[in-house]
Amino acid sequence: MDFKDILTRRRAINFFDPQRDVPQTLLEQAVEDAARAPSGFNLQPWNVIPLRELDDKVRLRAVAMNQPKVTEAPVVLIVLADCKGWEKGHPTLERNFEEMVKAGSMKEAQRNWFYGACGKLYGTSRDTQLAFGVKNTAFFAMSLMYACANLGLDTHPMDGFDHEAVRREFRIPDNFWIPLLLAVGYFSGEDDRPAPKWRKSYTDIAVRFD
Amino acid sequence: MDFKDILTRRRAINFFDPQRDVPQTLLEQAVEDAARAPSGFNLQPWNVIPLRELDDKVRLRAVAMNQPKVTEAPVVLIVLADCKGWEKGHPTLERNFEEMVKAGSMKEAQRNWFYGACGKLYGTSRDTQLAFGVKNTAFFAMSLMYACANLGLDTHPMDGFDHEAVRREFRIPDNFWIPLLLAVGYFSGEDDRPAPKWRKSYTDIAVRFD
Repeated sequence: MDFKDILTRRRAINFFDPQRDVPQTLLEQAVEDAARAPSGFNLQPWNVIPLRELDDKVRLRAVAMNQPKVTEAPVVLIVLADCKGWEKGHPTLERNFEEMVKAGSMKEAQRNWFYGACGKLYGTSRDTQLAFGVKNTAFFAMSLMYACANLGLDTHPMDGFDHEAVRREFRIPDNFWIPLLLAVGYFSGEDDRPAPKWRKSYTDIAVRFD
Repeated sequence: MDFKDILTRRRAINFFDPQRDVPQTLLEQAVEDAARAPSGFNLQPWNVIPLRELDDKVRLRAVAMNQPKVTEAPVVLIVLADCKGWEKGHPTLERNFEEMVKAGSMKEAQRNWFYGACGKLYGTSRDTQLAFGVKNTAFFAMSLMYACANLGLDTHPMDGFDHEAVRREFRIPDNFWIPLLLAVGYFSGEDDRPAPKWRKSYTDIAVRFD
């Protein structure tokens, strides 16, 4: 689909058709398309917990302000940002380094430099660790919303949940922040698609302080 | 451009053609296309400081690990995440509320509820404030990379900078986090476009802990 059409088509949808399932192959394709998003040092600190079973979605809805779309959407993803994805020994970091050596873009002798650079850029404070995880995972999540639109799927990124209650309910380890829940499905069509909301213009966005 | 082509075309480019400028109208179009990204409560907590003048780019390069692309790219954006964009009185929040009332999606009587909900979701801790700013701004920044690709522009998202030194040099207020610098221009073509890097597969990304 043309990107301009995707920009128009992607709207946060409140009403999903509970009768229309998302084929697993389509979900996997959307996730792998989205995973082509960039990330710092290619560390890809993103994961998802995909929920399809009603029992699971009921558990999530109970800690997500009882939002009907949590159970109505055929798939809800708990999106996870791995704030420790820059640490030496992390499986993704190690695999990434191996793959870079294989591709010739990094030399085995640079291993310690690589560990050091990741730690220095992302590991020095709680703020830098959280920003690392959340920024890169938001790149992935934004890409996923576009990738879904490209495949004819609708989405809704949700902030309305109790962060620590979701963590407890799904036993999510402390290294993860939960930047959003993402409902995925098909618009129910019972109402019109929501109209585009007001957006800031270029002159609202561009600033200068010095 | 088809989204599939954009996914292939968007690569972090190291070598920009310093002779080929980015027309201001094209930059503004890319920014406004990108600003169609979603955000929590439509708060759009993103700003950019666009740098075009060599003097400014030299100042930035000095606090960005002396990366040549900072001065070679015709435009470098300092991307800013407003971690206080959820606060009552913030101009964007107030404008957004007015626009929702105008559009009929919110009633004037819901004003205090709206302030309260924004504060409760985003304002309760340093972590929630930082995650709010960074997540939504990363949605915008990711969209901007795709919007640029759609318009034939190349980009490079950069983490290699001294966060506090950039803040001081450009007098960036404390309410902002700086998630990335974004170089924008045209690939120099002196080398091949970088090959796609290894990415995690669906089975690497999907997890479950309970």
